[in-house]
Amino acid sequence: KKMNCNYSLYLVTDRAILEGRDLYHAVEAALQGGVTLVQLREKHTSSRDFYQIALGLKDLTCKYQVPLLINDRLDIALAVDADGIHIGQEDLPLQVVREMLGPQKIVGYSVANIEEAVYGERNGADYLGAGPVYATQTKSTPIEPLGVEGLRSIKEAVSIPVVGIGGINVRNVSQVRRSGVDGISVVSAILGSFNPANASRELYTAWHKKD
Amino acid sequence: KKMNCNYSLYLVTDRAILEGRDLYHAVEAALQGGVTLVQLREKHTSSRDFYQIALGLKDLTCKYQVPLLINDRLDIALAVDADGIHIGQEDLPLQVVREMLGPQKIVGYSVANIEEAVYGERNGADYLGAGPVYATQTKSTPIEPLGVEGLRSIKEAVSIPVVGIGGINVRNVSQVRRSGVDGISVVSAILGSFNPANASRELYTAWHKKD
Ligand code: NI
Repeated sequence: KKMNCNYSLYLVTDRAILEGRDLYHAVEAALQGGVTLVQLREKHTSSRDFYQIALGLKDLTCKYQVPLLINDRLDIALAVDADGIHIGQEDLPLQVVREMLGPQKIVGYSVANIEEAVYGERNGADYLGAGPVYATQTKSTPIEPLGVEGLRSIKEAVSIPVVGIGGINVRNVSQVRRSGVDGISVVSAILGSFNPANASRELYTAWHKKD
Repeated sequence: KKMNCNYSLYLVTDRAILEGRDLYHAVEAALQGGVTLVQLREKHTSSRDFYQIALGLKDLTCKYQVPLLINDRLDIALAVDADGIHIGQEDLPLQVVREMLGPQKIVGYSVANIEEAVYGERNGADYLGAGPVYATQTKSTPIEPLGVEGLRSIKEAVSIPVVGIGGINVRNVSQVRRSGVDGISVVSAILGSFNPANASRELYTAWHKKD
């Protein structure tokens, strides 16, 4: 059965940002701080290592009853029985992924404009990761940011949940929330902190603040 | 139903060796020259590109009625319905791959010694790729070659087919055959040639030569 998903505070991993700090401990701290969804993203890692890391995070996210999604690698998602997968424009085609994973797993899809968002909704995505909202150093090729208005236009074009991603931090989170999206997806705002629990708590509080 | 496998002349792809020559054309020439099995190996390629290349080679190998195996990526193998997969020590665990692919698909396993060979046979491998037989520049980390005697000892330790890999060319192929293995696996001996059809024909002839 498909895990019920709270997209409000969505952590995407990046071991490079940890500069040697332990991924498992950082993610556990983030879960204690209120993260509602975890995506494991690995680049240039052997399949064996990716699988082992995914098994570890699966245990951890189960313990906190938070869904675990795997970035790109459908085989890893299947092998560890993750709750789903997140794919981008460079990954396996969306329809192929949905067909192979079946209807019970979560499929997320990265989009940068309304056209991709509508395509994602029509082809089986459960939610969209839309961005970059702000300029970010996470990706090697800089892309023109959507801004809050661009994010709002994507959210208004579809009826599935939309999560903003890219350059979101505790200072701009309330602005992002006012665009109407369902959550924020962060990497460095949590994993770049030496206190991921506290960083998560601050983001959680900022997201829920009435204004 | 599991495709019947002739392991005698097994081509493993490497686009780097082609230096821009077209992979599809090179593989077709190799098939015309007598290649009996093709393994698609891609490194540092996006999942989308890997998938597209695999779809193209699937068409081609079907046309020549030769099985197509995918290196490492179980998701790509499933997505294109390849005939099987080839994994190494750094890839998903052998038992996990066998479980996920089912009994009807071919699973190959790379081994460098008798211990790994016996493990492979016991845990569901259909065949073993044993090597490197000779010194080779294909892998970035040089490994002590098995030699023909090392290859023979692996072949004698198991009852599943064994294919020699690493530094095999038209000059040493008859020596490799006398070790008792079921075939040779080559990369540069075919794809490093400007005439892959001819290179394959020469290897085929050398493999079948009585002596
Ligand atoms: Ni790489």
